Amino acid sequence: MTAATRDRLIEEAMRLFGEQGYRATSVAQIEHAAGLTPGSGGLYHHFRSKELLLEAGIDRQLDRLRALRDIRQIFEGLTDLRSELTVVGRYTLQVLDEESHLLRIVGSELRDRPRRLVDTMTRLVDESYAGMASWVQRRAPEIDRRNAEDIATVALNALFAHRTMKDFLGLQPLSIDDDRIIGEWVEMVAGRIEQHIGNRQ
Amino acid sequence: MTAATRDRLIEEAMRLFGEQGYRATSVAQIEHAAGLTPGSGGLYHHFRSKELLLEAGIDRQLDRLRALRDIRQIFEGLTDLRSELTVVGRYTLQVLDEESHLLRIVGSELRDRPRRLVDTMTRLVDESYAGMASWVQRRAPEIDRRNAEDIATVALNALFAHRTMKDFLGLQPLSIDDDRIIGEWVEMVAGRIEQHIGNRQ
Repeated sequence: MTAATRDRLIEEAMRLFGEQGYRATSVAQIEHAAGLTPGSGGLYHHFRSKELLLEAGIDRQLDRLRALRDIRQIFEGLTDLRSELTVVGRYTLQVLDEESHLLRIVGSELRDRPRRLVDTMTRLVDESYAGMASWVQRRAPEIDRRNAEDIATVALNALFAHRTMKDFLGLQPLSIDDDRIIGEWVEMVAGRIEQHIGNRQ
Repeated sequence: MTAATRDRLIEEAMRLFGEQGYRATSVAQIEHAAGLTPGSGGLYHHFRSKELLLEAGIDRQLDRLRALRDIRQIFEGLTDLRSELTVVGRYTLQVLDEESHLLRIVGSELRDRPRRLVDTMTRLVDESYAGMASWVQRRAPEIDRRNAEDIATVALNALFAHRTMKDFLGLQPLSIDDDRIIGEWVEMVAGRIEQHIGNRQ
């Protein structure tokens, strides 16, 4: 029961932070959304402050992302370039869905953002882009680091916007579904890597 | 003097709407930012309502975008695939910079957004993506409409995220500058178009 309340507090807090911003969300609102009496201070039985509740929410997201990463290991290196890229692409969209709460909170708090949140998101973004650059270099060692980073950045940006335009701006160009986006994305990135591999021959 | 005040009201209103949201910005705040006495109602000498002020702001942005579009005509069709794509890429980043106020306002008002703003942004986004798809088909008529739309979507998304991640989330992966992004983007998109042209031969 206590664990369930704690989970519900985290869940509802992250949703509210994402919808209306971290600073604008009151402890009473979180209590109300989690089924506690608003203003009773029931939240403080579980978290000493709103900031520590946010940190618990960040930690939970990081755990989920770690679980996703473990899944990816299974696929890596097993298949041809296009199959592997398809897995990378689908995995990236899944990670973005998993991160959407955090991204919304970051987006709603451009000034005066909680330090831990900024550090976490910066690290997640940097790791993803550097990870993709390393993948590019494993598939085509003749691509130097700088160019691999450029390829990874343009490639991941494309998937990033596919998700965030709808979620953050309510806009969606040409309403193209995930499968078509991933299919085209795989061709574009694979083609670029093959340009380099082709120079080898 | 009156025209200058009107311009200043539009300028400051669009900035405030983008920073703190359209609904959250009061007429008094706009008056203060534009150098009028806050709460004096001086704004109403120029605009009958906050909504009409927003509409004037939207119209001004649309004028600027139209001016940009005219510039693009000069370059179109004059050069080879990569030069032309470079112009398209740079133009797109410039348009995104020009639209950044509107994008911020849209992002800050996901629920209950002013109708005119949503319609305008939807139209601008649709036109850009459809326009790029048409460009792809002009360069390579063997690409069917559906595929041209997929290419345009993945390509423009990549540039969209390059700008919005920094502006909306304060995040920037690998700090890669515009020239490198455009350079890599041109290779990726040109390569994809050449895959199709290559099939022709």
